[in-house]
Amino acid sequence: MPVTDAAIPVTDSGYRRSDVTYDVVGVWQGAFFRLDDHINRFRTSMNSLRMTPPESDAQIKAILNRLVAMACLREAYVAMDCLRAAPPPGKTRHPSNCRSYLSCYAIPWVSVATPEMFARGLHLIIPKARRIPTESVDPTVKNFHWGDFTRGLIEAEDTGADYPVLLDFDDNVTEGSGFNVFCIIDGKVICPARGALEGVTRASVLEMCAELGIPTEVRDIHADEFRDSDEIFASTTAGGIMPASRIDGRIMNNDRPGPISARLKDLFWAKRAEGWHATSVDYSVATTGDSAP
Amino acid sequence: MPVTDAAIPVTDSGYRRSDVTYDVVGVWQGAFFRLDDHINRFRTSMNSLRMTPPESDAQIKAILNRLVAMACLREAYVAMDCLRAAPPPGKTRHPSNCRSYLSCYAIPWVSVATPEMFARGLHLIIPKARRIPTESVDPTVKNFHWGDFTRGLIEAEDTGADYPVLLDFDDNVTEGSGFNVFCIIDGKVICPARGALEGVTRASVLEMCAELGIPTEVRDIHADEFRDSDEIFASTTAGGIMPASRIDGRIMNNDRPGPISARLKDLFWAKRAEGWHATSVDYSVATTGDSAP
Repeated sequence: MPVTDAAIPVTDSGYRRSDVTYDVVGVWQGAFFRLDDHINRFRTSMNSLRMTPPESDAQIKAILNRLVAMACLREAYVAMDCLRAAPPPGKTRHPSNCRSYLSCYAIPWVSVATPEMFARGLHLIIPKARRIPTESVDPTVKNFHWGDFTRGLIEAEDTGADYPVLLDFDDNVTEGSGFNVFCIIDGKVICPARGALEGVTRASVLEMCAELGIPTEVRDIHADEFRDSDEIFASTTAGGIMPASRIDGRIMNNDRPGPISARLKDLFWAKRAEGWHATSVDYSVATTGDSAP
Repeated sequence: MPVTDAAIPVTDSGYRRSDVTYDVVGVWQGAFFRLDDHINRFRTSMNSLRMTPPESDAQIKAILNRLVAMACLREAYVAMDCLRAAPPPGKTRHPSNCRSYLSCYAIPWVSVATPEMFARGLHLIIPKARRIPTESVDPTVKNFHWGDFTRGLIEAEDTGADYPVLLDFDDNVTEGSGFNVFCIIDGKVICPARGALEGVTRASVLEMCAELGIPTEVRDIHADEFRDSDEIFASTTAGGIMPASRIDGRIMNNDRPGPISARLKDLFWAKRAEGWHATSVDYSVATTGDSAP
């Protein structure tokens, strides 16, 4: 069906309790990027929430392929959600009473950063809202608990910035609204060790650094250290590597993307063009209608 | 439309970012309970999230009345949600780019507690999951960020209990999965001062205690004090006053609802039967189709 017709029943726990996990895989030049990594993370997330839709990993991959093929998209944002339904009549809303099911769609590629943001670098802030702690909701299980990010986004809009990067309750950096963050200090590329999604693009950054011989650290980053770093960039499926030029109003790199960030971004797309971690979309299923793996 | 046809578009921020607030008002014996209190809280919540649907408070009340009348319900659970839509094509998902709209429905009355739970008293646990802190998501703005409660519900099911009551990060009691909690110590009725929804039924309990001359305290309650209290009960629109008989396996009141809890519960329904805080449903609009206030 057209994505504009796709909807979640108003009484389903997936909406009414945000009892849902999801993942998003990108398609670029007719190929999925790191499809197995996304599927594996999605399955781990579903297991963590005890969600057991009937589809196997191979069947989910076939569904995603068919969605992209039917929508005739060469560049796509492909979402897979698994959510719990409403309980049957007369039953309480305990998780075990609610079946879990998949909801997937493919739309034309969307990016967190606009072309203007890519050109000038992201303007980031550290807002007052704190990231929901791991002891409340596990951030490695990708979820829609965005109330903290929404507060941060409103504060960003109020201060003329683009996006917020949230701290945990120890004043360490966690993640931004839909992206992981890195800072660069004395040539070292550093990202938070915890309190954030274990991003697939984040993993790609660490791989590229190893390839380039750029030292990396995965550890706690205090807000003061982050604000004072040489460069900052964000990473996400919906945008790739997005260099920043401002943090809390402080201007970095003459108000432009920093050199190491830009180098990583260029290498990322060069490697993508070479087919790095790519799985070609099989467009023939759009006409045969065969979605079985 | 039938509630089974009511659905939220899969790309709306209300689902995809849980960017939504809601309220629920009960109808019993053909009358809303404390309708204005619910509408006022709903409006405060919408303002807090900068949601500005076109409907006035009077119009929202007329919509809710018409839903109950058209569904021919004498006892109803009436939900009002306000959520943000998807951004227009080409726009980022910043809150100011997304219009907010209402989604309301009325269904036959549902209760958090089953008849069996009312008879024997709720079996509660304090699970490992901590309540999402106020600095991340404001619990007084009623929301669907239930990941912490869902973890607690799963832990409750695993241990054979009914429902979880979550602690904050200072080990103080906050609220349960869809209800406020009270404990009774030495004849005093005590409820948490912060970290919880300011429940309408909770306010009703405090009013009844004043009427009965039962002393009350609204203050922090440490987990140890809560576990060791004389009685515990829960309050919610979807169930009223629900006495507990077990907390973390400890049996209270010979495994039955406690005497003060039971007295408050009985008074609550006696007062409801007398029309306390009641607003009669106008069932005539179901046939005239007039929903204008």
